[in-house]
Amino acid sequence: MTGPGDQAHCYLDHNATAPLLAEARDAMVAALDQIGNPSSVHRQGRAARALIEQARRQVASLVQVDPAQVIFTSGASEAASHVLTPDFRMGRTALHFSQLYVLATEHACVLEGGRFARDQVTRIPVDANGLVDLASLASALKAHDPASGLPMVAVALANNETGVIQPISDVATMVHALGGVLVVDAVQAAGRLDVAIAGLGADFLLLSAHKIGGPKGAGALVSAGQVMMPGPLVSGGGQEKGHRSGTENLSAIAGFGVAAHIAAERRVAFAAHARGLRTMLESGIRNVAADAVIAGADADRLANTTCVVVPGLKAETAQIAFDLEGIAVSAGSACSSGKVGESHVLAAMGLHGSGLRISTGPATTENDIERCLDVFARLVSRRKEAAPRSAA
Amino acid sequence: MTGPGDQAHCYLDHNATAPLLAEARDAMVAALDQIGNPSSVHRQGRAARALIEQARRQVASLVQVDPAQVIFTSGASEAASHVLTPDFRMGRTALHFSQLYVLATEHACVLEGGRFARDQVTRIPVDANGLVDLASLASALKAHDPASGLPMVAVALANNETGVIQPISDVATMVHALGGVLVVDAVQAAGRLDVAIAGLGADFLLLSAHKIGGPKGAGALVSAGQVMMPGPLVSGGGQEKGHRSGTENLSAIAGFGVAAHIAAERRVAFAAHARGLRTMLESGIRNVAADAVIAGADADRLANTTCVVVPGLKAETAQIAFDLEGIAVSAGSACSSGKVGESHVLAAMGLHGSGLRISTGPATTENDIERCLDVFARLVSRRKEAAPRSAA
Repeated sequence: MTGPGDQAHCYLDHNATAPLLAEARDAMVAALDQIGNPSSVHRQGRAARALIEQARRQVASLVQVDPAQVIFTSGASEAASHVLTPDFRMGRTALHFSQLYVLATEHACVLEGGRFARDQVTRIPVDANGLVDLASLASALKAHDPASGLPMVAVALANNETGVIQPISDVATMVHALGGVLVVDAVQAAGRLDVAIAGLGADFLLLSAHKIGGPKGAGALVSAGQVMMPGPLVSGGGQEKGHRSGTENLSAIAGFGVAAHIAAERRVAFAAHARGLRTMLESGIRNVAADAVIAGADADRLANTTCVVVPGLKAETAQIAFDLEGIAVSAGSACSSGKVGESHVLAAMGLHGSGLRISTGPATTENDIERCLDVFARLVSRRKEAAPRSAA
Repeated sequence: MTGPGDQAHCYLDHNATAPLLAEARDAMVAALDQIGNPSSVHRQGRAARALIEQARRQVASLVQVDPAQVIFTSGASEAASHVLTPDFRMGRTALHFSQLYVLATEHACVLEGGRFARDQVTRIPVDANGLVDLASLASALKAHDPASGLPMVAVALANNETGVIQPISDVATMVHALGGVLVVDAVQAAGRLDVAIAGLGADFLLLSAHKIGGPKGAGALVSAGQVMMPGPLVSGGGQEKGHRSGTENLSAIAGFGVAAHIAAERRVAFAAHARGLRTMLESGIRNVAADAVIAGADADRLANTTCVVVPGLKAETAQIAFDLEGIAVSAGSACSSGKVGESHVLAAMGLHGSGLRISTGPATTENDIERCLDVFARLVSRRKEAAPRSAA
């Protein structure tokens, strides 16, 4: 489907979805030829099962857990809807969570609160750099009534729109001191930061294959233990030890495993590569638009992500202009079916308007950044010419 | 992963999962090279979106609905957990279902009742042929208290273990006359029977890609209208018009679309082919084991499915013997992670023990059936020799 004309295409939207790694692609194509159902006990079933368990070990290794602590899902949104629920089991005993506390900047799949009712979800503010307001979180947790049930806190290690990295260990210490459970959305962090679950202090992690060079259609809910678990979201045949029923997506899971292995292996090198490109990109942006605001500029951020707000330049319009020049960037997140408008992430940081998100990947080159800056400069200069008119 | 030794392998477990059709495989591999997120508005995103909408038209055509009535899910188990819920919306108004009525022979993903509480699920008995006891269904629905909420009924058009086909139109007429809503599990029927939603009289249909030659990891919830819809199971970015969030599984959905197209196109020819093989198989079985019971023998059944109970022959043991001879069959359904034991389907039909399920596909040959019968005859003769000892 990709014609030769697309070779010149420049893809700078890796936070929306990353191109499939060749190694993951090979594993997927090989898995397509496995004809068995992984739950069947015959030879074909056992061969399919072996692929899934290999992938489980690879994903477990990325987050440094026992493979038994990895539950495969169809993606991170499903994993979020699965774990964000008032109804848990502690072994055979029911365990109730009465309130979910999320950052105001969370991805929609966390912000929606999964199976919690709307009035059971409390939003915690962030500062101008997009960092969690720890004092607000502490006072919310102190005000939590333990008689009603346990508190659950869900925070993204790295934000999808801005790349801002939360002080997760501090959050974990606070949450645990106040009797809560911490769910960490590691979707954008995986392959870019260390996501070992113990180091983060998380009780649960959300992962997505397609953000780390694996396929769309696979993700995982990872738990720090095996005793305290959410009730199933998809019930039926009892796959995934009863946590997630349905015939496993063999090919996508095989691709996820390989992508997880590579994400762990190349993480440090990729971060260094991305950091160089980001420095080049952001100094270029500042050179041509001194009034451009880079969201979360004073916070630690993912090395591959730049979200820029330029006064007088609509991100949605700019994105279309970039697209016409063969450059894929985004205005906010890629979800919401092409919905555009003010970003709730930027709004929570006190920024108005929409941001242009440029997110790089392992194959991004300096030439890609130059092309991007070239288009950016033209858009900014046109804005300047138009400015007097729009001010009138 | 498939060595040349496997060429001689004989796969007679199509109801567990069907081998991927070459055409579906090609569509999937092509889709792997689409790098965009279907929700992104740039060129790569639009190309990905186009593939999904093409697949939606193909699946819609199989069940004769408007494409807008197809919601893609990760499989039929997810579709079941999605639709089997007390909480619906009728436009903007909440709609409550208070009880779910299922046949005692339903697949685990329906039997578990999705999001209904356990005491909200009523099992309706079947007769010795596995057919719905219409009088029991009628009296259950007449006893339903409409003040508590609406009744929902879920029935498989064709059973996964026995292939028994329910008189769905009769069920639909009764359910609608008594104010209920009908969910039809069409997973095993698709590609083998006409599954046009209006002809069945269903309000919702469940479909799975991997039973019709598509990939594992895709399925659909199809609705007869667009007004009365279940609350989302997976919430977040608002994909699938808000009914099912999460980045779409592009490759699996593309494969599903092609498989659905082929399922519709080749259905009649496949049924004729399968019917010939089944006649050969079942007369062969009766020749060597006069006491063998073919489950649902007197009911209409899928042409590709034979479930046989042989006194003194454990299906689990037989399955292993078949596997050693290079023939894949199953003992009951393939779910439940290799769990074996008495089948709830056969128990509901008053049959004891476990059944050996032989399910054919488009590529199954007479030679495959001969090989199967050969092994079957040997197992039966060994049983006869062992019988006096086991009776002692």
